[in-house]
Amino acid sequence: MGAAGAEAKLRGGIDLGGTKIQAAIVTAEGEVVGDSRRPTPSSGGPADVAEQLAEALREAAAAGGVDPGTLEGIGVGSPGETNEVTGEVSRAVNLPGWDDAFALGPALSEALGVPVRVGNDVDVATNAEFVLGAGRPYGSILGVFWGTGVGGGLILDGKPWHGRGAAGEIGHVVVEIGGAHCPCGRRGCMEAYAGRGPMEAKARHEHANGKKTQLFEIMEKKGRERLSSSVWDRALKQDDQLAKKLVDRAVKALGAGVASAVNLLDVEAVIIGGGLGLRLGQPYVERIAAQMSKHLFLDKRPPAIVLAELGDLGGAIGASLLFDAAPR
Amino acid sequence: MGAAGAEAKLRGGIDLGGTKIQAAIVTAEGEVVGDSRRPTPSSGGPADVAEQLAEALREAAAAGGVDPGTLEGIGVGSPGETNEVTGEVSRAVNLPGWDDAFALGPALSEALGVPVRVGNDVDVATNAEFVLGAGRPYGSILGVFWGTGVGGGLILDGKPWHGRGAAGEIGHVVVEIGGAHCPCGRRGCMEAYAGRGPMEAKARHEHANGKKTQLFEIMEKKGRERLSSSVWDRALKQDDQLAKKLVDRAVKALGAGVASAVNLLDVEAVIIGGGLGLRLGQPYVERIAAQMSKHLFLDKRPPAIVLAELGDLGGAIGASLLFDAAPR
Repeated sequence: MGAAGAEAKLRGGIDLGGTKIQAAIVTAEGEVVGDSRRPTPSSGGPADVAEQLAEALREAAAAGGVDPGTLEGIGVGSPGETNEVTGEVSRAVNLPGWDDAFALGPALSEALGVPVRVGNDVDVATNAEFVLGAGRPYGSILGVFWGTGVGGGLILDGKPWHGRGAAGEIGHVVVEIGGAHCPCGRRGCMEAYAGRGPMEAKARHEHANGKKTQLFEIMEKKGRERLSSSVWDRALKQDDQLAKKLVDRAVKALGAGVASAVNLLDVEAVIIGGGLGLRLGQPYVERIAAQMSKHLFLDKRPPAIVLAELGDLGGAIGASLLFDAAPR
Repeated sequence: MGAAGAEAKLRGGIDLGGTKIQAAIVTAEGEVVGDSRRPTPSSGGPADVAEQLAEALREAAAAGGVDPGTLEGIGVGSPGETNEVTGEVSRAVNLPGWDDAFALGPALSEALGVPVRVGNDVDVATNAEFVLGAGRPYGSILGVFWGTGVGGGLILDGKPWHGRGAAGEIGHVVVEIGGAHCPCGRRGCMEAYAGRGPMEAKARHEHANGKKTQLFEIMEKKGRERLSSSVWDRALKQDDQLAKKLVDRAVKALGAGVASAVNLLDVEAVIIGGGLGLRLGQPYVERIAAQMSKHLFLDKRPPAIVLAELGDLGGAIGASLLFDAAPR
């Protein structure tokens, strides 16, 4: 792999998701020399999750023939509220027992023997696309991560925009006053229609009410307990009518919500990523663009609407980029 | 007025609106030493409008005891697309015959004998509140101008955010997919519910269908041809049920649309201005805030939601501030 000679410049990146952990060893140029993947623990607490993160990183290092102790540092993209100064993560509601602040950075640093920085998962993934991926040609982008929820990241005039710390909640842009219930507890959010979580809840509800669908058979055949992106993809390919209806509904919501953001910010490009976005790919990016054009104030001059380029490892690669800059 | 001694530092500001032109003579500290107001011509073309702008400025100068030729410069806040380098304005669709570019800056400069700069009306009004008004304590604000339409201006980290030139279209954030028709030709925009124009269209429609309302009697008594802000205000004070229903609907849309913008940008403050916003005032700012809280992702940490402080002359004062900075 030629990694040995350049070890001093190698970094680790870990993407901590609600269902899986992905780790990668990444060069300063963003090339992945080794990676690994394991499920996120669904019970226990932050310390157990941290253990799995360390293990994933060790596996990625082994795959790349790298000693973790020689890495320049390790970045972690995490859900919840991340404190980039203390390395603490709190309110990671999709992770087991993770409400209070847990010093994830220090814990991992002790386990792996190198500096660790933590950042918000969506922010690091947006930055990865901006620096190394589909966002490279642009100065201002909106990253839309269409997965279990719908996350958003903003880079304005070359710099991440965090507002008072919580900017980018594009999933909670309202597309229908008084509309569908959202996991956030409110109504009519874009995520209530487009998040894979709410989509699954709706599918289960309609299925229970007698609507025919192959979604759950496909899920069982694949040995899954949830309607994963690959389950939706398979059902669409089999022309499953319920899957089609619910994905169309999601695309419509994405079109309206993302167009709202563009009307407000007039960014140069929208990058579509996330588990479902990546899985459904370019044809669905085009459908989202078509739905957006119904709502764009300047529909004759839309932003570029493009698929994320870094794929599934974008989050881990973006996390490694936390070592490109001084901690904020 | 003590203006004579400070004439070298005085500036003119003109707010060019769809129904009225307001001009002010303003000190470098933002104090108004003279102002005037005249109706916007409803026929003719850009040259006729320019003539009225010059006349309004001369009147304001006379009211302040100032010779227009001694002003440091005159700023104009204009609708449509403004070119701050050439002083041209185009596509000002609410103004008579103003689709093509017209060199408003040069025309006014020739008429009045001093330098003239043009800027977007909503941007200059937002900047006025940021520099001199309700936005002073904050670093990032969203200005929401609730009038005939609903305009938006953004200041992020102390600097105006224009995107590719057309940012801030908060009126065209979608609040209801497939919802009410908007003057922009699309459906479900916030402005379709909250703009005074669409509110009037809806009121006329319901009135024609037999719904009882005093709105049009009040309008006639006031000698108006449109449901102006003062007409709505009067009708609300008389507990007119249709007026109440339509204003409630507008407030609901504003709550959802502005909350969407806050979820995305997490600004420190939202400033509510515009003809209807200023007229209905603080109680309605509070109603908008209450509707917003239903949709705010971080509802326990809302931004400040405050009434514009500079009142009706904010646009003209903001235009004068175009002479605070070099042209962009």
